[in-house]
Amino acid sequence: MAYRNLAKTALRTLGPTAPSKRQLSSQASQLEAKRSDSLPSMSSFHPLTDVTSNKYLYSYESEVKESFDQIVPVLKRVSELQHEQNFVDHAQQLTMAELGFALPTHVLEKAWVRPLDMRGLFSWSVFQAYKKSSDNFFACDPLKGGEQSIEARDFESLLQDCGFHLLDVTPCADGRLAHSIAYVLRIPFSAVRRRSHAGALFDVEQTVNRWVKTEHHRYRQGGGNNAHSPTSYLKIVTYHFSSVDPSHQGCAAHGSDDSVAASAGLQRLYDFREAIENSFCCGASVDLLLIGIDTDTDAIRVHVPGADSSMSLDSWVSALEIYEETQFMEKEEALKKISQRVQECAPSKPETGMVAFITHLVANNISQIDYVRQFHAGLYSDAGHAERFIGVGIGFKEVHLRNLTYFSHLDTVEEGAPDLDVGVKIFKGLNVSRDLPIPVVIRFDYSGRVPGAKERAIADCRRVDAAIAMRYRELVADGLLHTFLTIRDRDQKAPAEAIGSSLDPSLQEAH
Amino acid sequence: MAYRNLAKTALRTLGPTAPSKRQLSSQASQLEAKRSDSLPSMSSFHPLTDVTSNKYLYSYESEVKESFDQIVPVLKRVSELQHEQNFVDHAQQLTMAELGFALPTHVLEKAWVRPLDMRGLFSWSVFQAYKKSSDNFFACDPLKGGEQSIEARDFESLLQDCGFHLLDVTPCADGRLAHSIAYVLRIPFSAVRRRSHAGALFDVEQTVNRWVKTEHHRYRQGGGNNAHSPTSYLKIVTYHFSSVDPSHQGCAAHGSDDSVAASAGLQRLYDFREAIENSFCCGASVDLLLIGIDTDTDAIRVHVPGADSSMSLDSWVSALEIYEETQFMEKEEALKKISQRVQECAPSKPETGMVAFITHLVANNISQIDYVRQFHAGLYSDAGHAERFIGVGIGFKEVHLRNLTYFSHLDTVEEGAPDLDVGVKIFKGLNVSRDLPIPVVIRFDYSGRVPGAKERAIADCRRVDAAIAMRYRELVADGLLHTFLTIRDRDQKAPAEAIGSSLDPSLQEAH
Repeated sequence: MAYRNLAKTALRTLGPTAPSKRQLSSQASQLEAKRSDSLPSMSSFHPLTDVTSNKYLYSYESEVKESFDQIVPVLKRVSELQHEQNFVDHAQQLTMAELGFALPTHVLEKAWVRPLDMRGLFSWSVFQAYKKSSDNFFACDPLKGGEQSIEARDFESLLQDCGFHLLDVTPCADGRLAHSIAYVLRIPFSAVRRRSHAGALFDVEQTVNRWVKTEHHRYRQGGGNNAHSPTSYLKIVTYHFSSVDPSHQGCAAHGSDDSVAASAGLQRLYDFREAIENSFCCGASVDLLLIGIDTDTDAIRVHVPGADSSMSLDSWVSALEIYEETQFMEKEEALKKISQRVQECAPSKPETGMVAFITHLVANNISQIDYVRQFHAGLYSDAGHAERFIGVGIGFKEVHLRNLTYFSHLDTVEEGAPDLDVGVKIFKGLNVSRDLPIPVVIRFDYSGRVPGAKERAIADCRRVDAAIAMRYRELVADGLLHTFLTIRDRDQKAPAEAIGSSLDPSLQEAH
Repeated sequence: MAYRNLAKTALRTLGPTAPSKRQLSSQASQLEAKRSDSLPSMSSFHPLTDVTSNKYLYSYESEVKESFDQIVPVLKRVSELQHEQNFVDHAQQLTMAELGFALPTHVLEKAWVRPLDMRGLFSWSVFQAYKKSSDNFFACDPLKGGEQSIEARDFESLLQDCGFHLLDVTPCADGRLAHSIAYVLRIPFSAVRRRSHAGALFDVEQTVNRWVKTEHHRYRQGGGNNAHSPTSYLKIVTYHFSSVDPSHQGCAAHGSDDSVAASAGLQRLYDFREAIENSFCCGASVDLLLIGIDTDTDAIRVHVPGADSSMSLDSWVSALEIYEETQFMEKEEALKKISQRVQECAPSKPETGMVAFITHLVANNISQIDYVRQFHAGLYSDAGHAERFIGVGIGFKEVHLRNLTYFSHLDTVEEGAPDLDVGVKIFKGLNVSRDLPIPVVIRFDYSGRVPGAKERAIADCRRVDAAIAMRYRELVADGLLHTFLTIRDRDQKAPAEAIGSSLDPSLQEAH
């Protein structure tokens, strides 16, 4: 996460809802120059690039982000109307037409007596935009990664062929990694367990519990595959760095030092494996993989493990180099070259399945490299943070867009406060500095098959909401932090359900 | 838990450290009258009573409680010395001789300049008494319930013969239930999973996780027994009531209404079973048992389940009635009678194994009924709360004495606040009302086999300590709440390790 130097880079990272052209600093002009160097002609896609997927992925990305980014211009027009006759009706017509939802009448109706609560309306609109995109995600599977999709089934079978029965990925909580699964690695979201953490430093004990659940599922009901198949649980950590501005836009949790980020990730992976090996008998172990992501180009580098799971921090296979090396080859030839490069990078002879799996990931990532070249001029213009909201709690299976959400996966604010504080700090730079509030979506998924679980998820939302209101009481008192409470039955395909908000009329009156 | 009417019953529940004779209210005199009615002559033990065990159990109970109860009289003498010459040396000699530990010099040394911090010395002494008893527990296994004991191995084998591979008991957090396992039910502590909760309302999701871990252990390494043996996970809820003062000294979480307590416990049990049955395939299920405990006599009543696990709230087998019915029989005859009574009480034909297990528990409880008759005049004199400290966190495997500890099993204060608030309320009545502080022992057990787990347990202690200091800041500021931080490696037999305290010199200076 890069929250440092927010002030310095404010011009480049205009924030989540900046609607118009970005004003470029001199630093940004250099970036622009770099970008055009690396820009390919539109016809020069890599032979392995999936042009069709890139199209629908871009259409989804631009559509969802547009729904957030048009909020400020529309609200500016609403603000201009506030002293007109029939203001409430006009405002509602305008937002319905432009944003597709109505604004809260109890807020609009106060316009005659005091200035319109634009912070409240902004938060409300962000929550509605989130809700619409979340509903659409569960209804239409726009990323074609749902459980029933051909893509998910194909991937599951590839995973097993490579020797793995579960894929568990920890990216950084940073919003610039939120698209790691569906875009950067092109993995169907339903075929992977994702749990983001600041600095990608996942919780060892929780991951051991997840491993136990996975193994139990295989023993009891052949989940993943039969427990006696010689496959492994594969744990991946993805750290990140910035090729354009390495010392400022890397991972803040590791001081923007990519070697520190990589080595901390690797240590956590080794700790996890040691925990499994020490705690369980009969040769229990897991497979590990460390991947670096360049947040400017989305190109990955993979620290290929030897068969003994040892990895080197200093050697990796670079998707960008492979892209260049193979861009004029035939598909088959390119894939062979990738596989060869992967094998060369391992500190000792790697497992065949692992080589095949990494080859697949690198090939997938080539599509993403072309995606960034085609649709983002080779380098993202938002090199820094530009998240639209903070997502707090357990869930958010539907969030897969870069810089849409800063994740704070937590059960309690008491435990998750360090991650959440970082998110709030980022949003002070992005929003509060512009007099806009921090929109926080709270989410607790539950299992509808467990009696009382829904009621407990609701209680969890309210508990975390109260803890946030306590921890950030000054922001809340100033209307600079709003919350939206949602739950979701993870056993169903239904969308998330909204159960409350700091903008509810009763709460607003109590202020 | 009975925290209501604390004021009214203050005379009966003189608090944790009341050293001298208890002053009796008129209500207490009635109790005294009742008690002598039920008092048997010393020679009339029930044939099933284990007189030898009762002796060492009483010796352990009185020794440990004595070590807490002599704190106030010794500190009174220290207080009298505070303006004498050589006070520090005198005080240390006295406490070493009487209590077996020294007082913190940095507190004593201030006596010349300001009144001695008796609240600090009291908390320190409670923490030392706790630490001594905890060390002794892990070193000497005074209750003969350790993993290697014959008692534990015999019980494990009985449990399996009865058809169960894991016993998981949830008593109320109330200190009057803290001896449920080792005394009331006479189960070796290492052969059972105990997790106390206010109102015995255990966490369904956490218990499902425990079930998964247990089943995984059986599949992987034949833990408990082989996964294909037709045995079950047995979940027990023990609710409580007071036969002497039913409407005030029952379970406060259920308004001192024993039928509400029983029905809430039963519902939670059914919810747990439904969660297992709905979430897992292949006929996954669990066995359930509901037990009521009379906190005045320690006599149990068991709601015998039919083979379909259905239980009736209105019918139970009463250990006290059985005691009377069988007291003049031979052992074998008495056991047969118990078994017969158990079978008669089931709403439908019960499983043979369940009948044998309940028969065993009832027979065990007969020893405890005689224990209370012999050593506590048939009815405990501390009918209400008289805990010595609050235990917060995860662990406390060594606490098995009635009214020693109010448990607040929690990972975070944010989630556990309702239980903890009840504990603090109880101690306001017991201690703060007498100008004495609330001693809080924080504990996090960890697995030494997991890298970094010890450091995380230490961090957990400090996090919970900070959250307590925030939640009860007025008490802390007045020196009316002190904390003692401990961790323990659950993979070892070593005692708990103290890692800090609010009485540490550095923290004291910062005040």
